[in-house]
Amino acid sequence: MKKKEIGYEDIDFAKIDYLRQERTGQPEVIFCQGKTPEQVVAITESIIRNGGNVLGTKVSDAMYRFVSERVEGVIYNHTAQTFRIMRHEPATTDSYIAIVCAGTSDLPVVEEAYETAVFLGNKVEKIVDVGVAGIHRLFDKLEIIRGAKVVIVVAGMEGALASVVSGLVSSPVIAVPTSVGYGASLHGIAALLSMLNSCTPLCVVNIDNGYGAACQASKINKL
Amino acid sequence: MKKKEIGYEDIDFAKIDYLRQERTGQPEVIFCQGKTPEQVVAITESIIRNGGNVLGTKVSDAMYRFVSERVEGVIYNHTAQTFRIMRHEPATTDSYIAIVCAGTSDLPVVEEAYETAVFLGNKVEKIVDVGVAGIHRLFDKLEIIRGAKVVIVVAGMEGALASVVSGLVSSPVIAVPTSVGYGASLHGIAALLSMLNSCTPLCVVNIDNGYGAACQASKINKL
Amino acid sequence: MKKKEIGYEDIDFAKIDYLRQERTGQPEVIFCQGKTPEQVVAITESIIRNGGNVLGTKVSDAMYRFVSERVEGVIYNHTAQTFRIMRHEPATTDSYIAIVCAGTSDLPVVEEAYETAVFLGNKVEKIVDVGVAGIHRLFDKLEIIRGAKVVIVVAGMEGALASVVSGLVSSPVIAVPTSVGYGASLHGIAALLSMLNSCTPLCVVNIDNGYGAACQASKINKL
Amino acid sequence: MKKKEIGYEDIDFAKIDYLRQERTGQPEVIFCQGKTPEQVVAITESIIRNGGNVLGTKVSDAMYRFVSERVEGVIYNHTAQTFRIMRHEPATTDSYIAIVCAGTSDLPVVEEAYETAVFLGNKVEKIVDVGVAGIHRLFDKLEIIRGAKVVIVVAGMEGALASVVSGLVSSPVIAVPTSVGYGASLHGIAALLSMLNSCTPLCVVNIDNGYGAACQASKINKL
Amino acid sequence: MKKKEIGYEDIDFAKIDYLRQERTGQPEVIFCQGKTPEQVVAITESIIRNGGNVLGTKVSDAMYRFVSERVEGVIYNHTAQTFRIMRHEPATTDSYIAIVCAGTSDLPVVEEAYETAVFLGNKVEKIVDVGVAGIHRLFDKLEIIRGAKVVIVVAGMEGALASVVSGLVSSPVIAVPTSVGYGASLHGIAALLSMLNSCTPLCVVNIDNGYGAACQASKINKL
Amino acid sequence: MKKKEIGYEDIDFAKIDYLRQERTGQPEVIFCQGKTPEQVVAITESIIRNGGNVLGTKVSDAMYRFVSERVEGVIYNHTAQTFRIMRHEPATTDSYIAIVCAGTSDLPVVEEAYETAVFLGNKVEKIVDVGVAGIHRLFDKLEIIRGAKVVIVVAGMEGALASVVSGLVSSPVIAVPTSVGYGASLHGIAALLSMLNSCTPLCVVNIDNGYGAACQASKINKL
Amino acid sequence: MKKKEIGYEDIDFAKIDYLRQERTGQPEVIFCQGKTPEQVVAITESIIRNGGNVLGTKVSDAMYRFVSERVEGVIYNHTAQTFRIMRHEPATTDSYIAIVCAGTSDLPVVEEAYETAVFLGNKVEKIVDVGVAGIHRLFDKLEIIRGAKVVIVVAGMEGALASVVSGLVSSPVIAVPTSVGYGASLHGIAALLSMLNSCTPLCVVNIDNGYGAACQASKINKL
Amino acid sequence: MKKKEIGYEDIDFAKIDYLRQERTGQPEVIFCQGKTPEQVVAITESIIRNGGNVLGTKVSDAMYRFVSERVEGVIYNHTAQTFRIMRHEPATTDSYIAIVCAGTSDLPVVEEAYETAVFLGNKVEKIVDVGVAGIHRLFDKLEIIRGAKVVIVVAGMEGALASVVSGLVSSPVIAVPTSVGYGASLHGIAALLSMLNSCTPLCVVNIDNGYGAACQASKINKL
Repeated sequence: MKKKEIGYEDIDFAKIDYLRQERTGQPEVIFCQGKTPEQVVAITESIIRNGGNVLGTKVSDAMYRFVSERVEGVIYNHTAQTFRIMRHEPATTDSYIAIVCAGTSDLPVVEEAYETAVFLGNKVEKIVDVGVAGIHRLFDKLEIIRGAKVVIVVAGMEGALASVVSGLVSSPVIAVPTSVGYGASLHGIAALLSMLNSCTPLCVVNIDNGYGAACQASKINKL
Repeated sequence: MKKKEIGYEDIDFAKIDYLRQERTGQPEVIFCQGKTPEQVVAITESIIRNGGNVLGTKVSDAMYRFVSERVEGVIYNHTAQTFRIMRHEPATTDSYIAIVCAGTSDLPVVEEAYETAVFLGNKVEKIVDVGVAGIHRLFDKLEIIRGAKVVIVVAGMEGALASVVSGLVSSPVIAVPTSVGYGASLHGIAALLSMLNSCTPLCVVNIDNGYGAACQASKINKL
Repeated sequence: MKKKEIGYEDIDFAKIDYLRQERTGQPEVIFCQGKTPEQVVAITESIIRNGGNVLGTKVSDAMYRFVSERVEGVIYNHTAQTFRIMRHEPATTDSYIAIVCAGTSDLPVVEEAYETAVFLGNKVEKIVDVGVAGIHRLFDKLEIIRGAKVVIVVAGMEGALASVVSGLVSSPVIAVPTSVGYGASLHGIAALLSMLNSCTPLCVVNIDNGYGAACQASKINKL
Repeated sequence: MKKKEIGYEDIDFAKIDYLRQERTGQPEVIFCQGKTPEQVVAITESIIRNGGNVLGTKVSDAMYRFVSERVEGVIYNHTAQTFRIMRHEPATTDSYIAIVCAGTSDLPVVEEAYETAVFLGNKVEKIVDVGVAGIHRLFDKLEIIRGAKVVIVVAGMEGALASVVSGLVSSPVIAVPTSVGYGASLHGIAALLSMLNSCTPLCVVNIDNGYGAACQASKINKL
Repeated sequence: MKKKEIGYEDIDFAKIDYLRQERTGQPEVIFCQGKTPEQVVAITESIIRNGGNVLGTKVSDAMYRFVSERVEGVIYNHTAQTFRIMRHEPATTDSYIAIVCAGTSDLPVVEEAYETAVFLGNKVEKIVDVGVAGIHRLFDKLEIIRGAKVVIVVAGMEGALASVVSGLVSSPVIAVPTSVGYGASLHGIAALLSMLNSCTPLCVVNIDNGYGAACQASKINKL
Repeated sequence: MKKKEIGYEDIDFAKIDYLRQERTGQPEVIFCQGKTPEQVVAITESIIRNGGNVLGTKVSDAMYRFVSERVEGVIYNHTAQTFRIMRHEPATTDSYIAIVCAGTSDLPVVEEAYETAVFLGNKVEKIVDVGVAGIHRLFDKLEIIRGAKVVIVVAGMEGALASVVSGLVSSPVIAVPTSVGYGASLHGIAALLSMLNSCTPLCVVNIDNGYGAACQASKINKL
Repeated sequence: MKKKEIGYEDIDFAKIDYLRQERTGQPEVIFCQGKTPEQVVAITESIIRNGGNVLGTKVSDAMYRFVSERVEGVIYNHTAQTFRIMRHEPATTDSYIAIVCAGTSDLPVVEEAYETAVFLGNKVEKIVDVGVAGIHRLFDKLEIIRGAKVVIVVAGMEGALASVVSGLVSSPVIAVPTSVGYGASLHGIAALLSMLNSCTPLCVVNIDNGYGAACQASKINKL
Repeated sequence: MKKKEIGYEDIDFAKIDYLRQERTGQPEVIFCQGKTPEQVVAITESIIRNGGNVLGTKVSDAMYRFVSERVEGVIYNHTAQTFRIMRHEPATTDSYIAIVCAGTSDLPVVEEAYETAVFLGNKVEKIVDVGVAGIHRLFDKLEIIRGAKVVIVVAGMEGALASVVSGLVSSPVIAVPTSVGYGASLHGIAALLSMLNSCTPLCVVNIDNGYGAACQASKINKL
């Protein structure tokens, strides 16, 4: 079969990479922004045809409706703007990823990270709304955060929570700046710069990139 | 009761901090942007349940309608995009905060500051449309501005009013840049930079952050 | 005398404003950057001639040497890059300003704020190196910070300390971002943006502007 | 003569445009930054050879010494970082340009504008150190500013002086932002943005561009 | 009458400055963006009541309809997004302002400048679509441009036309960058920076600020 | 005929340059953004009247419908947001341009480049979705890319594909950054900067500027 | 002993946090930039007194000489601008960290990461100068990179190497942008943005932050 | 021989790619910035050992002296900051590259492009100081520019020359922005943005990147 030899399926407007799982331990995922609904369905069908589960990110409600009318078993998370199609259940880890966020408005990014982590077979604990404005809420949840093998911290505005958490735990910390805020938050740039300059060591992904944070966390959680 | 011990109420997607008043002298306030109407109602009800007054900021008209249909006594300020629910009236200060603005287009930010200051129990004087394009209007109102214990200056475009006022009064000055303008105003960044570089000492809050300015002003007004 | 009528002394390249004390409660101060040593000496002599104390900021070592060879009683703070000349001692406040900083590298800005506050007649407490990387150091000093009438928080890198302190105290908080850091700190812009987007209310001055923070703090401390 | 036909003199690394005076009313001027001393001397000699006066801008002290050792009659203004060579005196206007500046540290830009304006045959009045921190100094000088046919306002930091002056006079106003300041002044960008967003109509030139402001002012002053 | 003494009419949310004409030679104009239709009508009525003509800028179609239903004689320019109400015709200048633009997409800014210049009593010549991509079109129109007392150049994208025109004429040149373009044009910042760095002297106003350019041009045209 | 003499047709709001083909080898093209449908039709008709083919870029669906109802033979590419009207078929080159893109979401820019290249008479090969996330897909297509006389690489996000391709081929490479991405992609600025700093030599056009890339590529392909 | 109770040693200008190892698994490290040599020596002595090893980063040659004349056993890495003092040897891991870099000019950052990783007890493999300009060099070293438990990728200019490596390995990837480049590299911002927008999942630290990358990598390598 | 098999020579801190000529038609070149003199010598010797000519860019005077004392036949261009070592002379093209620049201060970039083009075996014509401030100089040289197979345009400040030239010639145009300017030129960013937004099609390389422009031009010139 040609696909096997060349390592991808060529469907004209896309080349679905089915060696990615083997190479990187994680399958190709559909970044839906900028794609037409028809393209997303075709890529989805190709992945399923090749035996994979499907994860779509940055999925609008209209996109979801279009896909779910054509493909079975679509699990939509409206807050996360993701869909999953699980043709087989992945094994789940014993250790867990903690996803910690500063405020309720950060939930869409928390949920994107959550959906991705679950898709990749991880156990996850969510700790929501523990921003530094009421730091006792964070200390109250410290034990559960310290118990994680890797911690994702999601925060907008000034993003201070990431530095604080990273100074309190011994596991690796992945910080996700969010676009929550206004004015000088510059759509998340303020939080991004804050996290990049953290006085405690941590590493950072793109603004609102719950997906990327979960991919890295999953790799670490499975070590 | 568990809430008392841990200092907050945990309602799944939010942890309402009811020690904040004690710690900082000001209660938790609801930043509505990025929250669902359902979340805002639930947080509102929790605050009321815990005996507090409620202030919501960055409230859209649709959000207001949703909340007011479910909670009684909602006072909406459409210009400010805020709502207040006053279950008990706070004592009002004798001294006052002056809120001075450059132009009519700055009124939404003036009103957000006004609503916050009133919510926190302050007497307020508003002096509107006294920008440097017609500086005699400012001099005409100088006595009332000088009588304030603390002055908030709200200005967009080049934000020059803040420097001018600060050179004429002896009380502390808090400058609020607004996003009024276009082109090189960069959605308020020009006014923000202008105020940060004022040749007269003053301090600055985020673009369009009438709320934050009023919080600081209230702390100062109550000294 | 003409000066009295016009309210300033005109020495060709400068017009020393000796009504500023009366108008704003604080005298004119010499911003030395961009001025020649000869100009600084002439302005210094004019202020002394008019009965004032002198504060110079952004003073290089060479500038200091030049001035101190020509004017008596120059008190230089090398770390702060300031000089003071105190022809008469100001009364000192009973209440105090707390100046809190994140790291040892922030000391130049702490010292500029300190020198200014002392120049203006304030009692000051310095709390150094209590950044969020070791947050127990901050909690250990919380009582002394909470005892202040107004708090200045000085921090570079991600500037998270300002948000954390402001969530723990009831006095007004003035945040000073510093240029400590490298790369994406953008010479202090990261800390500045972080503070402007703080999830706890506070107000902000220019990067490395210990002087301006102390001016505002002094106004508040004397209320 | 070939030069006449083609309208410039070609000296290998430069083509001196001797039709510029005719086309634009103002001769070619030497922007010295990025040129070698040898190049500046050769261009200077070409201009003199073609019967012109010479103005050099952005001239370092070393550059000046090199040129003045090789060419006679070089008038250097160290503050302005300009030199002039006047082989014939231009007629001087009756009306004058007012050059107004906010602080003593802005003098280098004032002087560059002054040298250029004088080079082009204008009468000039300088009004120095009348920034908005002591606005009575400005009002004291308003008559002389209002008497000018065109006003240049030079200011760094927040540049508020430009808006204020423009609201008080009926002549055209050209604003020159300067790089005076630090931190969020971004080497003059703050003042530049401030002036571009002025609530009073004015027009703006590049940061520290006293030369360009004087060129425009001269064109206006000679109408 | 109180208004006369204080120099403005106070209508609560605005203070209409009716000394501006006397001070600056140009009356107050209504910047409609960020104002409610009701506010615009009230300010309009105040100006008419005080005997003035009215110019509104940044006027949406809806705003225009609201105003024209309540006030008589509204002249709307849809392209310019301006309205004028001329209760008395101003005298018109003999000399003219040339408004030159690079492309058809720059017309809204050309029209805003045109409306303002006409409102202020100027004769105007428009020269449209002579950008440097077909520079012979510019040379073809050079005579009419050179005949103007002052030239406004309107251009988006890279804004090169301003530098080229300014190198070919002896009258003052005011450059207006427009937001025409995409990607790295950064909504007009590219054209703005280009004009500020012109190798030929000119001066610049804010992006899309046809109004401000015409105000300055009118002052110059009337000298 | 006057047009012939002056080299363009003047239709009031536009001057259609019909010497451009002669001067630059490529005809004038209609940049539709910021133009009214009526203006686009009028320019289209002028070009056809002068014997040319027509290409419109940045064409909205509404604009297309308006034009196609008034002009015959409009070929619309919805993905590219372009229309073409081919009154005569251009000769087609033997050599080809390769248009290579990183992901499916980059297709609109690929298509704009494709339409332009075809309009200008080039043979084109498209190689889609060969981004570095699955680099074996690129190597699989290397032969066809190496066979091109010139290569256009279209990529968003981090734009790494351009550097990689340019290190593998000997033909000139033109990189087109796209606005595909979110957060710190800054609407394509990240990809643009990436390409400008490529460690392999290549040259770059504006974000999403498939048109400009194809124009350059066509000039090269026809050498 | 008081230190034990409060968890740090207070030496006036610094509070050395000796609970950090316990809390985060990694000891406090000295960021030398912005500190005086005397301060660095005092902190060094405090750490040694408390039984720790010492790592200093951003160490100038002068700083190193000052320290090494006062403290024994200082190991200086001139390229890395770090010093280490190892009073006891840490256990070394079996698994290793791969540090991969694009070019020779990136070596200072590679060495900072190397020194930190070794200080923290990790086995390290360096793979130098395998940038995408000659991608066969990378493929030649792929086995050793794939063998690492965690990979650090160091690259300046467009930083494409990070995306490419991350698409080829299954271990977590930490990308470090460097300030290598000029012009539009914006001192490393181009590489930083490139890495944040990688189409393959990875996480990122500050520009030139070899230290921070190694801290995270060490945490992962020790899982 | 191992090198042959793996396609590069590994000298510890560098891997010299000797397949690059074969793959891309151009050999590896030494970017000297950020490398030590010892490293540059070692790489130079490796290239010579492998039979190549050597080109070094961004070479300081000190670096040149160090290299020329150790390697024979070093041709240094001080203005260009490049060195070449030509062990064998390349064939020279019949067609030529035109390098056109706006001003004398742009010469360093012109020279870097020149040295690179000559190194790669191209005939070159330089046309210097023909910026738009005196556009007749450009028209005077148009024939020689039009005769080139490809044109490089080098310009700082507003970079308008690139757009103008590109509108006048039919050959491909590569624009090089330079860092010539000050203030809002932002070290060349203004010229870069200007060129990226050119209304005439052209393509662009990094600021001051004469090397990259010449590499592309050479590829085109040899088609």
